[in-house]
Amino acid sequence: MKAILLNCTLKGADETSNTAALLQESVDIFEKEGVDTEVIRLSDYKVAHGVSVDEGDGDEWPLLFEKIKAAEILIIGTPLWLGEKSSIATQAIERLYGASSNTNDKGQSIHYNKVGGALVTGNEDGAKHAAASIIYALSHMGYTVPPNVDTYWVGEAGPGPSYIEADGKENDFTMQHVQFMTYNLIHFAKLLKEHPIPAEGNVMDS
Amino acid sequence: MKAILLNCTLKGADETSNTAALLQESVDIFEKEGVDTEVIRLSDYKVAHGVSVDEGDGDEWPLLFEKIKAAEILIIGTPLWLGEKSSIATQAIERLYGASSNTNDKGQSIHYNKVGGALVTGNEDGAKHAAASIIYALSHMGYTVPPNVDTYWVGEAGPGPSYIEADGKENDFTMQHVQFMTYNLIHFAKLLKEHPIPAEGNVMDS
Amino acid sequence: MKAILLNCTLKGADETSNTAALLQESVDIFEKEGVDTEVIRLSDYKVAHGVSVDEGDGDEWPLLFEKIKAAEILIIGTPLWLGEKSSIATQAIERLYGASSNTNDKGQSIHYNKVGGALVTGNEDGAKHAAASIIYALSHMGYTVPPNVDTYWVGEAGPGPSYIEADGKENDFTMQHVQFMTYNLIHFAKLLKEHPIPAEGNVMDS
Amino acid sequence: MKAILLNCTLKGADETSNTAALLQESVDIFEKEGVDTEVIRLSDYKVAHGVSVDEGDGDEWPLLFEKIKAAEILIIGTPLWLGEKSSIATQAIERLYGASSNTNDKGQSIHYNKVGGALVTGNEDGAKHAAASIIYALSHMGYTVPPNVDTYWVGEAGPGPSYIEADGKENDFTMQHVQFMTYNLIHFAKLLKEHPIPAEGNVMDS
Repeated sequence: MKAILLNCTLKGADETSNTAALLQESVDIFEKEGVDTEVIRLSDYKVAHGVSVDEGDGDEWPLLFEKIKAAEILIIGTPLWLGEKSSIATQAIERLYGASSNTNDKGQSIHYNKVGGALVTGNEDGAKHAAASIIYALSHMGYTVPPNVDTYWVGEAGPGPSYIEADGKENDFTMQHVQFMTYNLIHFAKLLKEHPIPAEGNVMDS
Repeated sequence: MKAILLNCTLKGADETSNTAALLQESVDIFEKEGVDTEVIRLSDYKVAHGVSVDEGDGDEWPLLFEKIKAAEILIIGTPLWLGEKSSIATQAIERLYGASSNTNDKGQSIHYNKVGGALVTGNEDGAKHAAASIIYALSHMGYTVPPNVDTYWVGEAGPGPSYIEADGKENDFTMQHVQFMTYNLIHFAKLLKEHPIPAEGNVMDS
Repeated sequence: MKAILLNCTLKGADETSNTAALLQESVDIFEKEGVDTEVIRLSDYKVAHGVSVDEGDGDEWPLLFEKIKAAEILIIGTPLWLGEKSSIATQAIERLYGASSNTNDKGQSIHYNKVGGALVTGNEDGAKHAAASIIYALSHMGYTVPPNVDTYWVGEAGPGPSYIEADGKENDFTMQHVQFMTYNLIHFAKLLKEHPIPAEGNVMDS
Repeated sequence: MKAILLNCTLKGADETSNTAALLQESVDIFEKEGVDTEVIRLSDYKVAHGVSVDEGDGDEWPLLFEKIKAAEILIIGTPLWLGEKSSIATQAIERLYGASSNTNDKGQSIHYNKVGGALVTGNEDGAKHAAASIIYALSHMGYTVPPNVDTYWVGEAGPGPSYIEADGKENDFTMQHVQFMTYNLIHFAKLLKEHPIPAEGNVMDS
């Protein structure tokens, strides 16, 4: 079983990402449970604007999408700016959406039998709104959304330290939700591997 | 198997509800597939403000919540005002939230092993935002969200006829999505009945 | 000059409201600046479901709307549940919307030349999303939205104390934003009193 | 007086943009009223990820921001994907936010005394949510939001033609709202030029 965790930080490869730090908590659980994981920091890649699977001209999304397609589990991790998910998270969803009309061999969306969740960090307010946006997109595109798959850490209202500096790891609620999310993603990925969604009432128009 | 469909129209019992009309499309499929259904129009009941399971003093929510607890499937149906779900839909979620810290016999949220979806009607714009809000709430509270469980009909931008008058039933996209939603809710309700979510990593603090 | 502050708490008259406590900070500034204020706790009134100005049958909204119409300034104050404004705040907006097609003597929406803002309290996350919803509704209905008129206090992610218990009054950001909001509402209310919006390009169809 | 209209389409310079077509309706009114306008298609520029005013290394945002700073009016125009504003619109707001703590000579945010609005096109649903996000961001960053400054066109639920192909120009509601938005932006830009917001209660910490 494989999990891809997209880190949609705006920061470059050489900068410390709070979202990466919280994603690592999920990675640790996945690895303990024998799930193969890969964290992809999208800012490290040249992802083209658009909504097709391959925008050509050096677009590196097709490479990343191959990995996402090969994984049963997807977590979209994002920082917050003005109470919203990042532009890079928005772009990731635009690109995933471009593939949602592709079908598996039963004629269902290619995202069927895969499970997804959302992880959000910010120094303050906006996590539930960002998570709602990601979770809705996942379900609308064909992913299954298990219960309690929104994990986040934010501080008190106003400017202040972010997850790492604020020792967000000591927040029991956040740590409990990383655990809820990660285990429920594993449970449902296994369930759908053994019992794929029947192709009844959900086959796309040819 | 049982499905509860909450109609969160602002209209009283004697008025024609467009949301009721679109919910009926889902009811027809459920009944064809042998699922027992009940549509509850919340405006017919005296639901108290608050976030507890029983606000006392004539509160009729506890009565309704017994039905929701006994059902494997929940659809929250809402009209749109200013691009948002109705105040009654908001209230329904507040009340469901009040129960989400109650646990089943394994210590998981009482909403585990249940599946939910969203249905939205409006004369114009707002459906995806309302659906996102409902779907996030369902997942955050412990419901499982299958793929493609947001069904909606809205017309072109601006004032105009609503679902019934506009013959929204002729909209192929909407009819396809009623079908996707209803079948995926059935598939997952069956799956979780046969294979309940393991109580590992998702048990609430006692 | 008059300001109405709607407290959309779900709590009854005899319960302590955190939203009331933060609204009071704004009231104090208004009164210092000679603005007449009235805080209305909507849960104290029997407000009918619907989107007309008067739903009849004991509906107490018309009484409240007279006060709102007579005031140059409106603040919608709300608590957070699941990261959303309360059902009572949603209802207030539904009722305000019902009047937005009424016109002043120049043919503009009746809400023209009035200014509005949003105030949000919660024990945790959701404030910006709730404020965005309120501010959009205000602007869409005809209110003017000055800069920086979203005031909020929320705590760190997860369960925890609310504004009063957490001593939110000590949060510099929140206190600065109460001040920004209240002064900018006063500045714009005065500006529009002296220089009403010209009736050019914004007159409603008769 | 000057207006900048940001076109946040994902499409390259050589592709037809529906958002450009609706923005043009606003441009026509601005020019008729003697307002200098410039439409900027962001996908034509190399805008770096980040939240500072200048991310260096070939970042073309500083160039664009000089134009935005020199204009009294800003319209953010965006297409819809999955019911959300585009990743490019999200990025524009991230970059504008990076400047919002800069101050004018009175110590207010640099965005004070400027007015903003939102324009949205999509083949279907999502316009109000995208507009709410833009309008909230504008107000939160220091822009003034006049009444009725959200203009949009979307079609009926489901796949279908976009603004140009669907002859959205024939939609009276959309055309009325372009007019409301454009005139109210002009009225308020003039008002604030003659009567800047007093520096009382809204000066940022030094």
